[in-house]
This record gives sequence, structure tokens and C-alpha cells, in this order.
Amino acid sequence: MIKNLILASSSPRRRELLEQIGLQFEIIPSVGEEVISHTDPIAVVKELSLQKAMEIYQSHHFYTSSVILGADTVVACHNHILGKPKDTHDAFQMLQMLQGTIHSVYTGITFINTDTGKIDTQCCQTLVHVYPMSDVEIFEYIKTGEPMDKAGAYGIQGHFAAFIKKIDGDYNNVVGLPVSLVYQYLKNDR
Amino acid sequence: MIKNLILASSSPRRRELLEQIGLQFEIIPSVGEEVISHTDPIAVVKELSLQKAMEIYQSHHFYTSSVILGADTVVACHNHILGKPKDTHDAFQMLQMLQGTIHSVYTGITFINTDTGKIDTQCCQTLVHVYPMSDVEIFEYIKTGEPMDKAGAYGIQGHFAAFIKKIDGDYNNVVGLPVSLVYQYLKNDR
Repeated sequence: MIKNLILASSSPRRRELLEQIGLQFEIIPSVGEEVISHTDPIAVVKELSLQKAMEIYQSHHFYTSSVILGADTVVACHNHILGKPKDTHDAFQMLQMLQGTIHSVYTGITFINTDTGKIDTQCCQTLVHVYPMSDVEIFEYIKTGEPMDKAGAYGIQGHFAAFIKKIDGDYNNVVGLPVSLVYQYLKNDR
Repeated sequence: MIKNLILASSSPRRRELLEQIGLQFEIIPSVGEEVISHTDPIAVVKELSLQKAMEIYQSHHFYTSSVILGADTVVACHNHILGKPKDTHDAFQMLQMLQGTIHSVYTGITFINTDTGKIDTQCCQTLVHVYPMSDVEIFEYIKTGEPMDKAGAYGIQGHFAAFIKKIDGDYNNVVGLPVSLVYQYLKNDR
């Protein structure tokens, strides 16, 4: 755990998760356009996490040993990949798709070691079981304002907890960053 | 969702979870001594949640239709039932038992309808997979102060997230209250 950690993301939830486990880190958000060349969700999140980390690696000079962390999260359900909803209508359609069934949340994470240039990209999957929701419950949930900036149009750490039956996998992966994977990687990367 | 909800617990985490999903409720903490007559963890948490709810039901008059909610959480690992640690030595022994293996968290919840006297007791189980931890990591974790007021000597919602590999079940059950079960019960109890 000797290296400086750089989070290539402006997501407040990712920042909070790293703070929660007591890690010290800096934030240098990636700003580049995301280019998707895949249709498989695992390939998509790995590709985008790599693009984010690589942008910071190539555009900065690092004078101390650092590890850059890029991350990207999507929801996949019935062969659809769900990112952030465009508007409330889009959020409604996403939540109608997710209610009463099981979906997967994928987060791709890429580590780049600035000393060696070594790149390590992984993907973490969590299965999420959602209770049936009525249209009224979906409308009421959208009114909380939670869905609009979140992949799949829900926040498991907010009001939507009322509708989560169970998960199989890492909870924080659904929030947006599998922090235990990050901790275990840094611990073993000496 | 028309009834008044009464939480028979002073646990700040249970209060926060009910607030998180936007429920209105009152708190009337149970204060009676907990009497355990079982050795099976499921029977223990069901019994204790019933005692807590029953204490409030029998010691108060209810002028509005209410549902009383009692809850109790334990950790079970290798045939041991773990409650809150007595001291840091006890916490160390619990965490040594949990590291590198899988344990179960059980929360018993009892609902009592004050109009009908109907009692409903359920148990929710979540499997938790913990990464291997060195003695130094356990010491450092105990130094955060998190373990002392928590069943099994850890808080999944705190620093301990660094050591959680995955879960199978309800996350909030591990925090101390399966709030989705509470919401779904109240929604269907008309």
C-alpha cells in the first residue's frame, strides 16, 4: 500500500467509497469522449475503464510512484446495456425492464502503474434481484430524483433499497466501484 | 402503506435504513433483558425480535393503527453465534474467525399489528465472503473503533468493505435491517 492512488473519475460515489475504506488518493477526472466498439457488457466496461485510465496516464507526468484507477459501470438486462437515462421517460422504461426480474451490474476497473506502465484491467459482476414494482411505484421513485445520473436509473444505496430482494456479488460494485478489489489489488501490487 | 410504523430499537443504523427508503416512523426502544432459550441462530434472532416487539406492544396503548417492528441481528460462523464483542480481545478473536472464510448474518424481524394483534416473525439470511486478513490488518481495523458496537465485530458499511469479497442475499440485512422486507410487508399488510 505504498503507492499514490489517482482516481480518473469525478463520480462522487466512487470518491466516497474510497474514503469509506480509508484510502488516500487524488482525483484527476478523465474528460475524453467515450468510444464504444463492443456490444458485450464486459468488453464495454473494460474498454471504457481502460480509456479513462489511459487518458490520464498519457496526458500527465508522474514524479511519484502512482497507480491510476479508471472505472466504468453499466447495467445489463435481457440483452440490453443500460447506461445513464437520457430523461425521465427513458428512466421509466429502464425501471420497467428491471422490476420483477434479475439483472447484472458490471464495473470495469483498470489500474496503470506509472513506474512500470503495467496495465491491469478487470471486470466485476453482481447479480441484482428486484421486487415487482407497480407503475405508480416507478413514478414515485423517479420523483425522488435519484435515477437521472445513475446507470440503470437506480441507486441501490438510496430509496431503491426498498425494491432490492437480494444480490449475489459485490454490493459496492452496484454503487459504482468494487472497493475491495481496489484494496486487494493495491495490497498485492508491490 | 397506511399504518403508523414503530421501530422498537434504538439502533442508529436501523433508523438510518428506514430513513433511506423514505419511510415515516416513530422510535420506542425496547429496554428489557434479552432472554435466549435457543442455540440455533435462526431461532435466536426470531425469539429476540419477538421479545423486543412484544415488550412495546404490551407496555403501551395505541390510539392509531400501528405496526411495531422488532429486530435482532447475529453473525454465525463455524457453529458459533457472534453478538457484539465484549472488548477488543473478543473483537480480535471474532475477526480471526471470520477472515478468509464464509459466514452467515441472520436478522430476525417481528411485526405486530396493534389493531388485530397479529404477529408475524421472519428471518433473513445473508452469506458473507471475507478475504483473508493478516493479524496486522485486524489490529488496524479494530483501531478504527468500528467493531465494538456491532454483531460479529465489523461494519460492512464502513472500513470493513475493503475485506468483503462478495455477499449472497440482502446487503442491508448485514447492516442490521432488511429494509426491503419491511417495505414489502407494509405494502402488502392492508
